[in-house]
This record gives sequence, C-alpha cells and structure tokens, in this order.
Amino acid sequence: MKIMVQKFGGTSVKDVDCMRQVLCRVRKGLDAGFKVVVVLSARAGRTNRLIELAHVWSPEPDCAELDALMACGEQESVALFSMLLADAGIKGRSVLGFQVPIVTNSVHTKARIEEIDDVKLRAMLEEFDVLAVAGFQGCDETGRITTLGRGGSDTSGVALAAALGADVCEIYTDVEGVYTTDPNVCSKARKLDRISYDEMIEFASMGAKVLQIRSVEFAKKFNVPVHVRSTFSDNPGTMVIQEDDAMEAVLVSGIAYDKNQCRVTVRRVHDRPGIAAAVFGAIAEARIIVDMIVQNTGQDGFTDMTFTVGRGDFDKVEKILAKVQQEIGAEAVQHDTNVAKVSVIGVGMRNHSGVAAKMFATLRNENINMMMISTSEIKVTCLIEEKYTELAVQALHDAFGLDNQPKIQDFSE
Amino acid sequence: MKIMVQKFGGTSVKDVDCMRQVLCRVRKGLDAGFKVVVVLSARAGRTNRLIELAHVWSPEPDCAELDALMACGEQESVALFSMLLADAGIKGRSVLGFQVPIVTNSVHTKARIEEIDDVKLRAMLEEFDVLAVAGFQGCDETGRITTLGRGGSDTSGVALAAALGADVCEIYTDVEGVYTTDPNVCSKARKLDRISYDEMIEFASMGAKVLQIRSVEFAKKFNVPVHVRSTFSDNPGTMVIQEDDAMEAVLVSGIAYDKNQCRVTVRRVHDRPGIAAAVFGAIAEARIIVDMIVQNTGQDGFTDMTFTVGRGDFDKVEKILAKVQQEIGAEAVQHDTNVAKVSVIGVGMRNHSGVAAKMFATLRNENINMMMISTSEIKVTCLIEEKYTELAVQALHDAFGLDNQPKIQDFSE
Repeated sequence: MKIMVQKFGGTSVKDVDCMRQVLCRVRKGLDAGFKVVVVLSARAGRTNRLIELAHVWSPEPDCAELDALMACGEQESVALFSMLLADAGIKGRSVLGFQVPIVTNSVHTKARIEEIDDVKLRAMLEEFDVLAVAGFQGCDETGRITTLGRGGSDTSGVALAAALGADVCEIYTDVEGVYTTDPNVCSKARKLDRISYDEMIEFASMGAKVLQIRSVEFAKKFNVPVHVRSTFSDNPGTMVIQEDDAMEAVLVSGIAYDKNQCRVTVRRVHDRPGIAAAVFGAIAEARIIVDMIVQNTGQDGFTDMTFTVGRGDFDKVEKILAKVQQEIGAEAVQHDTNVAKVSVIGVGMRNHSGVAAKMFATLRNENINMMMISTSEIKVTCLIEEKYTELAVQALHDAFGLDNQPKIQDFSE
Repeated sequence: MKIMVQKFGGTSVKDVDCMRQVLCRVRKGLDAGFKVVVVLSARAGRTNRLIELAHVWSPEPDCAELDALMACGEQESVALFSMLLADAGIKGRSVLGFQVPIVTNSVHTKARIEEIDDVKLRAMLEEFDVLAVAGFQGCDETGRITTLGRGGSDTSGVALAAALGADVCEIYTDVEGVYTTDPNVCSKARKLDRISYDEMIEFASMGAKVLQIRSVEFAKKFNVPVHVRSTFSDNPGTMVIQEDDAMEAVLVSGIAYDKNQCRVTVRRVHDRPGIAAAVFGAIAEARIIVDMIVQNTGQDGFTDMTFTVGRGDFDKVEKILAKVQQEIGAEAVQHDTNVAKVSVIGVGMRNHSGVAAKMFATLRNENINMMMISTSEIKVTCLIEEKYTELAVQALHDAFGLDNQPKIQDFSE
C-alpha cells in the first residue's frame, strides 16, 4: 500500500472553492496510485472565532473545555471536505483525532503526541481510498479531547506520515516553500530547494510560519522527508530533510527575525547560587518559554539578569516576577517591547568560523546597536531595536550573498 | 448517589445569559444534594446554520459527514457551559456522545440508541458533581459520530436518566408544560398536570414540539417519569408518567393538529393483492413515514389508494411513485398540500364510546368537511382543509370541555 500524506492549512480550506482545489490535489495522489491521508486545519479564522466565543463565556476559559470547543474547527473542515469526496464518488471518510486515535498527554491547548496506533488507520485505508483526518486535535488516555497548539496540524500531518511510514509527506501552504528570509522584508529572498531539519527548527523558532517547530522536531526524530509547497501552484517547494555533506558546505542558509519579543531585566539581584533557579523555575512552571538569557558579571555581590520572552507572555511573567522579586530581594523588574531578534542560520557554521564576526560587522556598518547576543551551534542571534529589523535583515541577506544559489550546488550540477 | 438529569433545549442555551440561568437550575440541583447530569442541545439556530453550511458544500450532503458536522453544535454548547461551571468553582466537565459512550445503530441522522454504559458515567460522577453531556449525538459501534434526529436531545436526556436510574428527569423547554392544545391556536388551552406516555406519544406524533416522540417511547419503555417544565419560571410543569385509573377516567386529554401534511392519491390501481405492498414497500425503503392510509372499495377491478406523508417528504415520494406507477399500471398520482390533521386524544377512549361521533358532529356543525378519518385506541384523527384548522381545534376544545379541570381530579382533592 503506497501512502501519501497531504496537509492543508486554514487558507487552503477556507471555503468550498478552496476545498475543491484540495480535492484536485488529492485526486492527483490517487491517480498516482497512492492511498491519501489528507490532514486539514480549521477554515481560516475559524479557530480565532471559536476562541473569541469562549471569551464571551469566560475571561480565562478552562483549557480542557477550550480544547473541546476549538476541536470543532477541524471537525467541521473534515466533515465538509468528506462531503465533496462523497459527491465526487471517491471512497473516503472523515476521521477525528479520537477516532485515529492520536493519543496525547493531557496538557490541554499544548498537548504533545504520545502515540498513534497505525493498525486501525491501516484498516481504514483498506476500506477507504482517502481519509480526511482532523489536524490539531487528539485525545488523552481517558478520551478527552486535546489540541496541539497553534500550527498543530503540521505536527498531525508529520506524525501520521511517521506512524504510517508514508512514502510522501506534503505540507501545503500559501507560500511557495521556505525562503532565505521573509520575502515581504527582503525582495532578494530566494526559495530554498532543500533545508535541513535543524535549520528549519531554527527558522521556525524565530516565528517563520511555514512549519510549526514541533512538526519539524517530529520529522527529524522519525526522519520523515517533508515537502513544503504551495496549494496554489504546481512548482516544487522546499524539501525539509536530514542534512548531508553538500548542505554543510553552505555557510549560511537564511536570515530569520522575530518582532514578537519582550526584553525583561531583573535589577540588582544577589549574585549567588539559586537566584536564577528561583526566577526561571517560576516562569517555567507557567510553561512560558524564555530565550536569550544573559547575566552580567556581578559587582558588590549583586548582578542584573536579562532575558527575552514572547510579548504575549509578558503579563503573566510580570505577575510571576512580582512575587519572585520579593523572595529574592531584587531591586526592580524592567521591560522593553521595543526590540526584535535577528538571526543568521546555517548548519555550515559548525565547520566554519567567522559567521558571528561578519554578522556583527554588518550590523555595525549600518549603525545598528546589539543589545544582546546569543549563539547556538547553527545560529547567531542579536537583539536589536525593533525599528532596525528590516534594515538588518536586508543587510545580512546581502552580506552573506543569499540571493545567489550557493556555490556547492553549482558544482554538483 | 442521588442523580438528577436536566435537559435544556436550544433556546435555553442560546447565549451566555441563558446559560447562566441554566447554571442556576444546576445549582439548585446541587444544593438539593443531587449529582447533576445536564444534557444540552445546540444553541438555538446553530444546527440549522450547520446544515445550511453543509448545503454550500453539497446539494445532498453525505449523512455520516453531516452527523460529524452537526455534532459540533452540541459540542460547542457543552464546552461553553462547562467554562461557566469552571469559573463558578463547580467540579464539572463536558462529556461528548462518544465519551459516554452513547452507542447507537449506524443509521446516520436518524440513529437509535442501542446502549448506554452507566459504569463509566458513574465513575465520572464520582469525580465530578456536574456532567454537561452533549445531547442529540452518539457514536456507532465503530466509533463514528451519529445523531438522533430532530429533538434527539430529549431522547438523550431520558435515555441517560434510564441508564443511570436517575431520581429525577427534568426536560426544560420554553413553554410551561404540556397543554390540552396549542395555546397559540386556542386561548382556552389549559396546562395539564399529568399526561400518560401513550397520550404524549400521540401528541408528539402530531407535531407538538414539547417532547420528541422517541424520548417518550424511551421513557415509557424504562418507566422514567419525565417532568416537562419551563426554563424561565419556577412553576411546576407537566409530569409525563405511566397511566393510572384516574387518568383513564378522563375521556379526552387534548386536541392536536398538524399542518405539515400532504395527501397523496394513486388513481385506478388494480384491486389485487401485492399492489399496496409495492406502493408502501418502496416508500418505506426510503424511510419515509406514511400515515392515514385509506383504500376505497374497488369497482371494475380497480381502486384508488390514498395516504398522507409529511410535506417535506413529498418530493421524494413523487419520484418513488413515478417508478412504481409504471410497474403497477396506475392511472395517475395526485397530491394536495392544502390539508391538515386534527386529532382528539385520550387514554379514556379505551373504555368509553362516543368520542368519534362527538368529534364528527362538532366538525359538521362548523361545516368542516372530513376528507379522511383514521382511529387508534386512544386517538381519532380527521384530515380537513388546512384553512379550517384553527376553527376545528377551538370547536373540539370546547366540545370536550377541555378548558375545565377534569372532574376526576376534583374528586381526588
């Protein structure tokens, strides 16, 4: 049994005309001899409207009930799409998260997939040629509905491909693939033919909305090659795959940025063991992701602690820190939302030096001040003033010559 | 464990303010020491909007997928209501059809409940004080979502009460209870304190929308006393119960009518065995309910066959009969939608004669022509011209003295 997984996002299923285009894609899969598992998101805007509805009922809706409510979005999509299948004479059916089942942990609104039993799915694929599976949703061990967090349908798609050992996993989106940087910011941005899982994870963690970060982690873990491509064109997109030698020969793959940042500084805390644990332990308990932690060398037994969080999380962080501040005797908690992260990403950095130096020089030439710096094996990130974001991205894209196909690929042709 | 089942219809949960009133009802149950199973319909109009949505996708939506779509209506209701429970500090949760599970057959959009396992429900009631169960929906043996047909939430409520052996089963609605006839048609209509299951079934089969007919059949089968009452007042409503001697002493309980009728006549069919089977067999196969069948005594080996169906079913019936007409060599198929049924209902008829005669005399006095007549053990029905419906109902209500409390109840006081 040859199996193809196709995942379509909200804009690809937003109305009946869009769904008919999805149907064409599915037909192509069938014509090529595949059984097709088509994973659908909620129609564009639907999830947000359900969340708005919930907030009419409750200022802070119960997470488990919010999941039960939000799951309706994808349920509607797969039911409606399966009506098209029936009318087209295609043997298909809708499959909800609990019907697969896609078993997750019980962390409502941010659940993680724990198990997908492929036996039941394969039995369904014996009977049906197309399964329209609701993305984003699963159920916990007790059968309660869970959701996987924003963009979770990508993860559903990749996880189903992994569980079924699918021959093809296509993630359809409203862009042509993965670019060297945001084409809206830099007109010279170039579509990448291939990108490694690790690079894609770095792009995703910077807020590039092509793929949800966990879906890429999943793809990496189970080595699922993912084809990111456009619903609205037949051009090949970008293959997200295991890195190989050719990829490592390329110094930098792309430039990412993230404006959804807030810098938080805890002033004059005692420079002694346990302080960082108190601060970040409390924040982690609230499941808030902290990035770019910097602690200066202390003076007089005191030090400052600075880090960044997503802007949407700051209200919660402020409350948490108000409590912690008293416990640890910090002088003040300050914050600044007028900041952005810019990153240079590439697996080639592992074997090359000089990327960071080139980045710093480029920003200095543009008179852009770096407030914080952090590095990982395949990424260098700088926090800058938000207003310089576009300038920084364009300058770095030029500096690393990303508008040209990398030389290594010229050689291989 | 004392258990109360409360069922609320679409108008009772149509917005957050209405749901807060439902919450008050639930609280009263809790305060009285009950665990409360609250069964909710979709918010008023929601199911219709989902059906309209389906018809944008398909002229005749696949029934299984329509069920998956419609089930969202109740899913939304129970999730939203459970958010109120959480905010009120009440230990509660939403429970969907498949989570109970309410197991039905696989006749999508008109499924019948086959089994409700009370073990899992009781375990949930140990943990939670309130379960907000989605009405109208269940799942078949394979786990696919089914729905129980219009008004199916009543059946969900009664079935849950039966399965749990609930101490109280309350069906909340937007009227004060069951009336001797439609108060919109007859100002003298009187609220009944009690009505037998059989009478209620006859009322429901005539389109009185207080209770879905199958919910009453269920209540009768499992002898669940059902309290029909208003969401918006504290007055006692109507108890629907097993009939007793006092009830049988009352000749007539009420007058029902149904304008949603279409009279169909198959002209000049051969008067021989097998013809009726051919006609009604084909209609039954399409799961269309036929009522008031009349076949005149034949002449010259030919006869006419007349029956009524719901107006919404006539298009289907016409198609079916076009085929059958050829097979059996009937001369023509005619229909008339300008008709209505009026019925006199009462368990007392079993032991009294003269009800039919009095009904016919009353209609004759008003110069209302009876096109067809049918009788059952506890009902006499006449088909009349639609325009006389209100007049007929008022005249019959007067003739049987229904505006007065029945004498038998005066004696018992």
